Amino acid sequence: MNSENRQYSEIRQRVLDANLSLPKYGLVTFTWGNVSEIDRQHNVIAIKPSGVEYDTMTVDDIVVVDLSGNILQGTLNPSSDTQTHIELYKAFPEIGGIVHTHSRHATIWAQAGLDIPALGTTHADYFYGNIPCTRPLTPGEIEHDYEKNTGLVIIEELQRRQIDPVAVPSAIISGHAPFCWGKDAVEAVHNAVVLEEVATMALGTRSLNAGIMLQQELSDKHYFRKHGQDAYYGQHK
Amino acid sequence: MNSENRQYSEIRQRVLDANLSLPKYGLVTFTWGNVSEIDRQHNVIAIKPSGVEYDTMTVDDIVVVDLSGNILQGTLNPSSDTQTHIELYKAFPEIGGIVHTHSRHATIWAQAGLDIPALGTTHADYFYGNIPCTRPLTPGEIEHDYEKNTGLVIIEELQRRQIDPVAVPSAIISGHAPFCWGKDAVEAVHNAVVLEEVATMALGTRSLNAGIMLQQELSDKHYFRKHGQDAYYGQHK
Amino acid sequence: MNSENRQYSEIRQRVLDANLSLPKYGLVTFTWGNVSEIDRQHNVIAIKPSGVEYDTMTVDDIVVVDLSGNILQGTLNPSSDTQTHIELYKAFPEIGGIVHTHSRHATIWAQAGLDIPALGTTHADYFYGNIPCTRPLTPGEIEHDYEKNTGLVIIEELQRRQIDPVAVPSAIISGHAPFCWGKDAVEAVHNAVVLEEVATMALGTRSLNAGIMLQQELSDKHYFRKHGQDAYYGQHK
Amino acid sequence: MNSENRQYSEIRQRVLDANLSLPKYGLVTFTWGNVSEIDRQHNVIAIKPSGVEYDTMTVDDIVVVDLSGNILQGTLNPSSDTQTHIELYKAFPEIGGIVHTHSRHATIWAQAGLDIPALGTTHADYFYGNIPCTRPLTPGEIEHDYEKNTGLVIIEELQRRQIDPVAVPSAIISGHAPFCWGKDAVEAVHNAVVLEEVATMALGTRSLNAGIMLQQELSDKHYFRKHGQDAYYGQHK
Repeated sequence: MNSENRQYSEIRQRVLDANLSLPKYGLVTFTWGNVSEIDRQHNVIAIKPSGVEYDTMTVDDIVVVDLSGNILQGTLNPSSDTQTHIELYKAFPEIGGIVHTHSRHATIWAQAGLDIPALGTTHADYFYGNIPCTRPLTPGEIEHDYEKNTGLVIIEELQRRQIDPVAVPSAIISGHAPFCWGKDAVEAVHNAVVLEEVATMALGTRSLNAGIMLQQELSDKHYFRKHGQDAYYGQHK
Repeated sequence: MNSENRQYSEIRQRVLDANLSLPKYGLVTFTWGNVSEIDRQHNVIAIKPSGVEYDTMTVDDIVVVDLSGNILQGTLNPSSDTQTHIELYKAFPEIGGIVHTHSRHATIWAQAGLDIPALGTTHADYFYGNIPCTRPLTPGEIEHDYEKNTGLVIIEELQRRQIDPVAVPSAIISGHAPFCWGKDAVEAVHNAVVLEEVATMALGTRSLNAGIMLQQELSDKHYFRKHGQDAYYGQHK
Repeated sequence: MNSENRQYSEIRQRVLDANLSLPKYGLVTFTWGNVSEIDRQHNVIAIKPSGVEYDTMTVDDIVVVDLSGNILQGTLNPSSDTQTHIELYKAFPEIGGIVHTHSRHATIWAQAGLDIPALGTTHADYFYGNIPCTRPLTPGEIEHDYEKNTGLVIIEELQRRQIDPVAVPSAIISGHAPFCWGKDAVEAVHNAVVLEEVATMALGTRSLNAGIMLQQELSDKHYFRKHGQDAYYGQHK
Repeated sequence: MNSENRQYSEIRQRVLDANLSLPKYGLVTFTWGNVSEIDRQHNVIAIKPSGVEYDTMTVDDIVVVDLSGNILQGTLNPSSDTQTHIELYKAFPEIGGIVHTHSRHATIWAQAGLDIPALGTTHADYFYGNIPCTRPLTPGEIEHDYEKNTGLVIIEELQRRQIDPVAVPSAIISGHAPFCWGKDAVEAVHNAVVLEEVATMALGTRSLNAGIMLQQELSDKHYFRKHGQDAYYGQHK
């Protein structure tokens, strides 16, 4: 192994592990889904290769690209969604890991073209307000630079609604599926698991009570009980 | 191990085991949920620590607190829901164990702000009548002493409806999730498993027949077939 | 082992195995559910004991009773539903095994007080027409001889609709749950698995298309492709 | 083993493996479902035997038939659906493998008599447009040559709508269940797994938003990103 390979061996291993956790959590079918992590010091991204089976994936299959998408390490094509990841990393400097899945219930909300509404404290523990659904892409955005535009429409939606990507670490793309993120690949996957759970609960809740919404005070309480300077949940204080 | 540690080693082991049964029964995700048990002789509660992974939890992680929430044993913070448990133990002297989860379908009913209706004999075997959903907490109750007030609103709801906490060993909190209880930690978890099952069935039942309710006579028959002096179910007579 | 114990050792073993298959197929929670088989030569029934854990159940726990419910073998109480089994065996001489579960989706239909409608060929392969939901029991039928009356209301429903219990080997009890049967305990459990699957599919189907019913010709074709003198499915010809 | 047996040993093994993958993917209950593959050089089909348990199935159980349904190898009856497979192979020369299941959600749509609508990119990645539901068979088509007519009604539906069976490798039969196909048995099973997933998502999506449809441009983009001369997904370029 040359020095360049050694340089990124740790991030590639973390990204491999995070990708392999997707089938373990029941978030993906076959080769679907992908996780990446960014090395902000060197401005490189380690990401899953496109269309490779999780069962046989090794650390050498993980591709390292720069922020223009040029391959720095690895012999396989990176995920076809690489340009989406790059745009999100460029726009959201606070985030360090991204995951894309077609997890069932989050995808149901995306296909319905609707925000995943904040309906309970499970949601509020992780997401401060609705998980936004983007507008549909235009035919032109689909035709040219589709994956890049998928990132841009997420960014546009958060900016238009003045949503902090740290407080709402996920968005769903109309007609498509969710992207989640976090401070690293592990946290992004963690958020993807929670997203699927709250999406499932929201579907059932709305079938019982179509008009219900979470109290704003309860959303504040649960979110800030776990996040920020006054957090008191867990052992981290 | 000093004598004080030995004193509570059995209750801590039982509480550990009961907590570890939550992921086994599919009731929790990540570190969510918590089980406690009370030692009525010494007025101490053993409870899960806050935000610790089930995979690595050991008996030493279980925290022993008194009824004011002071830590008597253990080096970790107790569950952030400890004050809720304390209020329930103080108000309901008949109960010995409490469990809190965000189990999927019970939480769906809580998020919908609706009682889990008694719709069948499965429900009636364990719960004598609807499982009550509390009123929403007021902004003031959320702002100050939130976890204590969560317990108080459960107590208020049962008292207002004159519900015996032994006959209906669960309540759901509007916008939040269920609490269950029993004579000890094992029975509380047992009731939490049944709660999730009856919540799931109730959701499907109401989608087929929005107005259906269980006959009162059937509720009486099944509940008293298993509980009280005339019970004849099982081997305990 | 004395000769009387040897006499029923085979049927008790079959009934044990059939009961243990219930949790394997995901049809029961905790100690719920029970399977029996009848020995028509000696007019005795082997049945699960009441309220015993599946994990620890042994062949010696299986209870042998006569058609009046008197215990011939075994030291435990038989299932509290024994009288229901007895009535069904007395009324339906063609059947040799019975299973009772609270399997989720069949119970949802029972709680809704509705027949499980014949909506597809999966249903028609096993059940010739709707799976009938009984009328609610009267307060008097619930108060006295409840379990016996549960059997009688199933028999009444089949007779009223002129349903052959061999062609429709299941019924659901209003507000309660299903009973299934077959030529022996294994076939009864097999039918209980299929019942749960068709109940699940029927719930989803009706949510998409509230008025749909299966063509009578398709019901005939699939049922008689597998049953009766012109059957050509499988290897049994 | 004689030379004739050796001749088809590879295709029989592939068909065995593909059949055994059905329970692994959760697509079948008991003996339900069947997979076949065609050898276009010799015009023979290897197919699952009728009504045999997956647990005990061996390569010797796989039946080889010609395109008239005559048994060339194997001692068991071939699947009762063999004539359906034969008609599809004759009509669609591009396909090499076929699978039939009663997978839950695809069957729900079939029972509802409705196309599985294209509602998201997960669908568009594999199926170019709605997955068609056939018209109901006529009483005459059910009475005589039912399995053959099941194939013919699928073919009729695709031809009437001018659907390319390579672009939409599945159809659902009104009141019955799906058939899927692909270039070989493995790809047919792969498509059956995806079909079940998109059918599940479509059911949830329609419950949230009854009128939603996928943008045509998104369907084009995702389908042609993975299929045809301009595909750029995966490692195959």
